[in-house]
Amino acid sequence: MKSKDTAPKKDVISRQPFPNSKKIYVQGKLHPQVKVAMREINLSDTKDSLTGKLVPNEPVTVYDTSGPYTDPNQEIDVHKGLERLKLPWILERGDVEQLDSFTSEFCNKRLNDSELNHMRFAHLKKPFRAKKGKNVTQLHYAKKGIITPEMEYIAIRENQRIDEMTEISQQHQGESFGAAIPSKITPEFVREEVARGRAVIPSNINHPEAEPMILGRNFLVKINANIGNSATTSSIEEEVEKAVWACRWGADNIMDLSTGKNIHETREWIIRNSPVPVGTVPIYQALEKVNGVAEDLTWELFKDTLIEQAEQGVDYFTLHAGVLLRYVPMTAKRVTGIVSRGGSIMAKWCLAHHKENFIYTHFEEICEVMKQYDVSFSLGDGLRPGSVADANDEAQFAELETLGELTQIARRHEVQCFIEGPGHVPMHMIKENMDKQIEVCDEAPFYTLGPLTTDIAPGYDHITSGIGAAMIGWYGCAMLCYVTPKEHLGLPNKEDVRTGVVTYKLAAHAADLAKGHPGAQHRDNALSKARFEFRWEDQFNLGLDPELAREYHDETLPADGAKIAHFCSMCGPKFCSMKISQEVRDFAAKNKVNEETVVEMGMEEKSQEFRDKGSEVYL
Amino acid sequence: MKSKDTAPKKDVISRQPFPNSKKIYVQGKLHPQVKVAMREINLSDTKDSLTGKLVPNEPVTVYDTSGPYTDPNQEIDVHKGLERLKLPWILERGDVEQLDSFTSEFCNKRLNDSELNHMRFAHLKKPFRAKKGKNVTQLHYAKKGIITPEMEYIAIRENQRIDEMTEISQQHQGESFGAAIPSKITPEFVREEVARGRAVIPSNINHPEAEPMILGRNFLVKINANIGNSATTSSIEEEVEKAVWACRWGADNIMDLSTGKNIHETREWIIRNSPVPVGTVPIYQALEKVNGVAEDLTWELFKDTLIEQAEQGVDYFTLHAGVLLRYVPMTAKRVTGIVSRGGSIMAKWCLAHHKENFIYTHFEEICEVMKQYDVSFSLGDGLRPGSVADANDEAQFAELETLGELTQIARRHEVQCFIEGPGHVPMHMIKENMDKQIEVCDEAPFYTLGPLTTDIAPGYDHITSGIGAAMIGWYGCAMLCYVTPKEHLGLPNKEDVRTGVVTYKLAAHAADLAKGHPGAQHRDNALSKARFEFRWEDQFNLGLDPELAREYHDETLPADGAKIAHFCSMCGPKFCSMKISQEVRDFAAKNKVNEETVVEMGMEEKSQEFRDKGSEVYL
Repeated sequence: MKSKDTAPKKDVISRQPFPNSKKIYVQGKLHPQVKVAMREINLSDTKDSLTGKLVPNEPVTVYDTSGPYTDPNQEIDVHKGLERLKLPWILERGDVEQLDSFTSEFCNKRLNDSELNHMRFAHLKKPFRAKKGKNVTQLHYAKKGIITPEMEYIAIRENQRIDEMTEISQQHQGESFGAAIPSKITPEFVREEVARGRAVIPSNINHPEAEPMILGRNFLVKINANIGNSATTSSIEEEVEKAVWACRWGADNIMDLSTGKNIHETREWIIRNSPVPVGTVPIYQALEKVNGVAEDLTWELFKDTLIEQAEQGVDYFTLHAGVLLRYVPMTAKRVTGIVSRGGSIMAKWCLAHHKENFIYTHFEEICEVMKQYDVSFSLGDGLRPGSVADANDEAQFAELETLGELTQIARRHEVQCFIEGPGHVPMHMIKENMDKQIEVCDEAPFYTLGPLTTDIAPGYDHITSGIGAAMIGWYGCAMLCYVTPKEHLGLPNKEDVRTGVVTYKLAAHAADLAKGHPGAQHRDNALSKARFEFRWEDQFNLGLDPELAREYHDETLPADGAKIAHFCSMCGPKFCSMKISQEVRDFAAKNKVNEETVVEMGMEEKSQEFRDKGSEVYL
Repeated sequence: MKSKDTAPKKDVISRQPFPNSKKIYVQGKLHPQVKVAMREINLSDTKDSLTGKLVPNEPVTVYDTSGPYTDPNQEIDVHKGLERLKLPWILERGDVEQLDSFTSEFCNKRLNDSELNHMRFAHLKKPFRAKKGKNVTQLHYAKKGIITPEMEYIAIRENQRIDEMTEISQQHQGESFGAAIPSKITPEFVREEVARGRAVIPSNINHPEAEPMILGRNFLVKINANIGNSATTSSIEEEVEKAVWACRWGADNIMDLSTGKNIHETREWIIRNSPVPVGTVPIYQALEKVNGVAEDLTWELFKDTLIEQAEQGVDYFTLHAGVLLRYVPMTAKRVTGIVSRGGSIMAKWCLAHHKENFIYTHFEEICEVMKQYDVSFSLGDGLRPGSVADANDEAQFAELETLGELTQIARRHEVQCFIEGPGHVPMHMIKENMDKQIEVCDEAPFYTLGPLTTDIAPGYDHITSGIGAAMIGWYGCAMLCYVTPKEHLGLPNKEDVRTGVVTYKLAAHAADLAKGHPGAQHRDNALSKARFEFRWEDQFNLGLDPELAREYHDETLPADGAKIAHFCSMCGPKFCSMKISQEVRDFAAKNKVNEETVVEMGMEEKSQEFRDKGSEVYL
């Protein structure tokens, strides 16, 4: 299992485009340099069952998180890293400077350690930072009324060209619970939502490789995939590929939760090659620096870690600033105590020193760091419930109140901020989490882990949590942190990551449908139409996982002929409801059967005609 | 793939008991002959982290659908079939007679066909039927105020001895949407619910092998697994094992949807060896009898099929009686037309003959058949939506109105009746389905397929539908028909059946938690406590799929030692929140830290003590 840390090989990175898909780039109007990457899925024609005429089906454009990897025209070299597409936009604003060297002591120690040469990222760039007295956050620009290229990119991306595609059938209204999603997302709308603090654009100026994306309940629900090596397993190589792999299947951003040695180097490789924002939990690395002895953590060491990661390009930090000394005893009677790693580390520190959480006491100072790089706060829920028994309890909601207070401080500093949530919550208690968070945190975006709706299915927790994730996404949650089948049992491998990501992608999409997001139902309708018309290839290709769908189909009907067959292995020709249904429809059409004519009895000749031709329509 | 139909071999049947579990039998009080089978999971002791003392954990009793197969003390011979445990109860009532021969023409034709000898069930028994003028339905008894052994069995089974197990922590209240679940299920409560038509006990007098179970929104949510061979695949052998296998993982009943040849013989083998009720869609076999030409179906042939299956012991029939001629044109503009096989067959027949659905026009005559065997109606939703685009449309709700009308007719005949529902429905439109059904069908139990909450994830439809299933179960749905990963793509194999059943079991349980079912949360709490205390084996064994959980765990930490380790592969020792959390808790206990003391500052000696011992607690 354990393999030595070395620079990743090019060939381990997944690059193949999705079947019948091509990458397209939509240009910005306000900012012509903006080119929004999307995936266009081409479809085969529909054969009219009566006339036999071929009717073309429009291609379907979908939101694409896979980055340049799925574009055959793009040169990829993981040793150079991805193109830094946002850099010109950042420099154009004239409020950043490139430093001669890295600020973090620890960072420089690593850079000067020749033993790490073999694993160090080759083309290291000097970091950027805000000029003295400048604030470079998207929130700061938004409040000044500036529509940044990042904002226009997001507006175009969220629309998925849906207005240019003809709707196949009525889109359902949806029930939005106070969210207000416009029929078309404009750059100005993006700006307003960011300025209001209701949306966040994670975009560290030192991660210009990432394609802009937004978190907010008036936008598409996003998902996060956790990767990262642990003390016991995996290598840099595996982690970079895991990041690319997660994005391929739909991760809107990733978190590097590495806890082993060489966290610094691993993270560099991941960020330089990640087309999506990257988040971390800095306390993990800080703890490594004090050899795992929580009591030895200090503010100075922690601050150096924040700067180290900010200059590498981490887009948001999970900070357990709400775990206050007085809340710790509230967890004593819980079934599962404290289940957040960061939360338990801070609780241990607080008790050991009998002092208040240093992330809380130094929060304003942290804001000063964040605004110089546009690192967003992801205020961690260190006291989230670890079992349905502990859901929505005193400790959890006490911490949430504190996160609400910190949200206001972050906003005063014009630092972007969103809030993390549970965890393990039975279905009937999920909405209370969303409603309380909106109220207490003044509509800052919510980012939850699941929640798991029951504890009795280890091995299936991507599903127990996918249920809760879809529901809270519908209620207004902005981002869903995935759970893999290995949750509670082991570290996810590549296949687990794929299963977790696709499960959460479908949950997020189910939420978008329920919210009535204008861009959501088009893909469902296109796939359903393909299904009804037995366009098997199109059905596979419009799905979230074309490979798996094809694989399952071919298990029972491998022959190519079966993929154009007007029935499938489930029912066989005689029992195919869709086939019969098409016959019924054709008969009705040919004979102008409608709700009126059908009630006049005795259409004998029509039934005769049907008996003659009806069952033959497909021959 | 295709294998010749022959009698099943004994050794292909899964029999191994679940780890650390033993089958127990709880005796009835009103009816001492009633012995309710349950599974008792034995747990290891908890090691007190401070004193090191061992504290025993009570065994946990769970609802068990696996039947005698998981009881090593029971002799199983698939050629003889299971013990006919309900037969004495049925005979005792003195209202049935055993016939000298089978009534169905078709049945007798098959029995006299020597070519079928090699595949025929060996120990065929003569069928039972109500004596002239008698009604033998559980509904009939319930209305007369009789508490049958079946009812007492169910009351004991639903309680799962929860009142005898000490609750580990507070059970959440739940939100029941008008359901009224008592804190303890009594036999009288079961009778009342059945008499009211709000619950159904599927129990054909010719299927005495099945253990009694109940469908109703004031009881545990049940799940159904579809099995059955198709024209293209599988054998009797595989189907019997698939039935046993489905029950093993938690199927509360199964439907035999066979459409190939030898349906009659396959069904006999399945029913004789099924510990749970068995449902069918008789129109499938009827269509086979007319070589798949829907137009050739006749009422007489259909009626003979109903009697044939009633005398074999089918517990409920899915009948698409609500697909009326005038509703068919309502499906013309749909994206996916009619997706119910039975529905499309009836629609085709109606149009071809321009006559009203013969199942509808002969409904009273069908009631006369049902009441002689206590076969329940499962009124099929032939016009259910096959895509989110078609959800909750005119056709679907028009049919539902008709099913409501037929429910009243069935009740007048004192025949048990429940209602089938969709299908494909986005989350925000699910509750409307439940509420309308309760209103229109006067609280008859609802039985839905999923619903799938999005159409874009072929290969993952057990999950897209598990989301909808959990939600509608919470809203009051009595039974959830499972969907496997192969839905829309191919026929499920054994592993797909297992995945589908466990997925639906966890969805049903999530619903029971949300409804606040008194028997639900105990298992979650016991598993969470085991998780927090690193009792790995107990965590596996309390889960729905112990084998898979263990397998996943062992992938990363195979050593036996790891299963008693106080950390796991996810975080390693230093980052284990549960370990740290236990240390925090012990520290608080030892030093009487509570919400008062914690606010007095300067407990230096305590923090010192913690630094000395705190991190060592586990060594």
